[in-house]
Amino acid sequence: MTASSSPPTAVTEQARTLIEPELRAAVAGLDPHLGRAVGYHLGWCHPDGTPTPAPGTGGGKAIRPALTLLAATSVGATPHTALPGAAAVELVHNFTLIHDDMMDGDELRRRRPTVWKTFGAATAILAGDALHTLAFTALARHEGPHTPRATRTLSRAMTELVSGQTQDLAFVRRPWQGPAAVTIPEYRSMAAGKSGSLLGCAAELGAVLAGAPHRTTAAFGRAGRHFGLAFQCVDDIIGIWGDPRETGKPVLADIREGKKTLPVLAALAAPVPAAAELADLLTTPRPDEAALRRAAELVEEAGGRRFAERESRHHLERGLACLAEADTQGTARGPLIDLIDYLGRRTS
Amino acid sequence: MTASSSPPTAVTEQARTLIEPELRAAVAGLDPHLGRAVGYHLGWCHPDGTPTPAPGTGGGKAIRPALTLLAATSVGATPHTALPGAAAVELVHNFTLIHDDMMDGDELRRRRPTVWKTFGAATAILAGDALHTLAFTALARHEGPHTPRATRTLSRAMTELVSGQTQDLAFVRRPWQGPAAVTIPEYRSMAAGKSGSLLGCAAELGAVLAGAPHRTTAAFGRAGRHFGLAFQCVDDIIGIWGDPRETGKPVLADIREGKKTLPVLAALAAPVPAAAELADLLTTPRPDEAALRRAAELVEEAGGRRFAERESRHHLERGLACLAEADTQGTARGPLIDLIDYLGRRTS
Repeated sequence: MTASSSPPTAVTEQARTLIEPELRAAVAGLDPHLGRAVGYHLGWCHPDGTPTPAPGTGGGKAIRPALTLLAATSVGATPHTALPGAAAVELVHNFTLIHDDMMDGDELRRRRPTVWKTFGAATAILAGDALHTLAFTALARHEGPHTPRATRTLSRAMTELVSGQTQDLAFVRRPWQGPAAVTIPEYRSMAAGKSGSLLGCAAELGAVLAGAPHRTTAAFGRAGRHFGLAFQCVDDIIGIWGDPRETGKPVLADIREGKKTLPVLAALAAPVPAAAELADLLTTPRPDEAALRRAAELVEEAGGRRFAERESRHHLERGLACLAEADTQGTARGPLIDLIDYLGRRTS
Repeated sequence: MTASSSPPTAVTEQARTLIEPELRAAVAGLDPHLGRAVGYHLGWCHPDGTPTPAPGTGGGKAIRPALTLLAATSVGATPHTALPGAAAVELVHNFTLIHDDMMDGDELRRRRPTVWKTFGAATAILAGDALHTLAFTALARHEGPHTPRATRTLSRAMTELVSGQTQDLAFVRRPWQGPAAVTIPEYRSMAAGKSGSLLGCAAELGAVLAGAPHRTTAAFGRAGRHFGLAFQCVDDIIGIWGDPRETGKPVLADIREGKKTLPVLAALAAPVPAAAELADLLTTPRPDEAALRRAAELVEEAGGRRFAERESRHHLERGLACLAEADTQGTARGPLIDLIDYLGRRTS
């Protein structure tokens, strides 16, 4: 992997530039304290509300809105047509980050203390709630003929998203082995909800707002869903082997927190001696740093990393196949491949 | 006040019966664990998911959906037309209860342990998030010509609602006296967001979905907003003088928690000796039961309770005046007066 955590493509840069006024207009209507918490999370300001020097660089990678805009332009619409959808998916993404950071107890996000850590739990809940509502506001603000369908697409995806996050949290309490252990199919269902739904929605919304026929919007939805699943596999790999200087998280973070990620589940399921040793290590109470490192080695030795890499590639290929079906003129293919290439080689 | 916490009017009963299938359909799509938490909150089931004997009685008073349906029928539409709006406002109301209980640390709701207390903080956050999204799902599910306008009405109200709740929480940290003390105008702005916005939205949505002209929908919105403000005044009175057997909350709950409610703010602002004594008591660290009782007496003596009762009556009258403007045929007036009468005399 190359060391790059900044957006790599012209497409994400363009998406970020286009949606920023929409996001700022949405956030401007909030109570000032809430507006500061949201602005801080989006990288626009410090906790006291003073603007940051380069507000454009702190607010995440704009992958989802880029996907929305690409889907729209590939079926012949202007990016402008899909702007409400692009803003909505970015708002939803940030809503889930704020709530998830709090539920997971994560203290750092984009190299800065998280919202709950900075402003307290109540403000984090309300800031997330505000962004959640603003997503629907952004979608409804510029009413067009396809707004109702777009609203249905968004709300359906969000129900799936919340259910996926619920499953993910429930996994933490389940054992590593035995009949109650998390299976790989269960993992896939969780990842489809947690990561597939919003990327699927992002792509689908672009086509919906462009007025594409159902067959096309559904194919974009499937493509985005596969990209989301690929994204989650890469996330799982980074969560174990990512460089803390890049990820901004502690080394071996996911193993430390006992997360049921794909590399670990796949390693445990492998019929090799490393799997048994790994199971023992994972069930040791309060493992030290050396034990965590050994666990990561065993995951690799048992083929868990390879399994996740293969699964990621599989979803990228399936996603591109769905895309070929949807994007018949092939205009989105080039920039999308750049975006996907980035998803595959990102390190944080 | 009479001792009654059950719905008093045929209108709320009808609203509850009509929206229940909508709510059940919405909740059915959730992850089973989340569905249990939501079903528990709505009074449908026990924490383990087994149905409660009388599921219709545990889920709150259905005041907001009743207002939505009344607004629709008063402009000549069927209740069915406004059903998506009625379900949406009830879902929003329950979303805010689940998140608010958690932020306020409240352990009881409708005489049962709250969702965060029963299922933990993470599930409470996700259950609230799920109901938040399902409100938009319910509104978008039966698409009609007025769905986009209804969605805008709902999302605007929810932004206000979240901002009002933020102000309310910020008030807790502010002093009782001095230049940083909460003023009555600030209280009113908070109450408009926290309570006025959703009742205003409930009434407005009914008229919007019925296709009423802007002048009418706006008048319904204003009427509902006044009813919400009246509701908040009564809530504040119950929060101090309510019977714990009725409210299900500890005696003198709001004084115990240092809430900046209208009776207390009005008492502190009164130019009487009781106000000074009250200020001393409120700034005493860890007051005992006797001190809390004395504080409540002083609020009454300084005219705080009278002030809140007057403010409540004022908003009820203003609300009825707006209603007379909106409901030109007067069909909603009778049932609405029943509903409002209930709001005024309720005890929990």
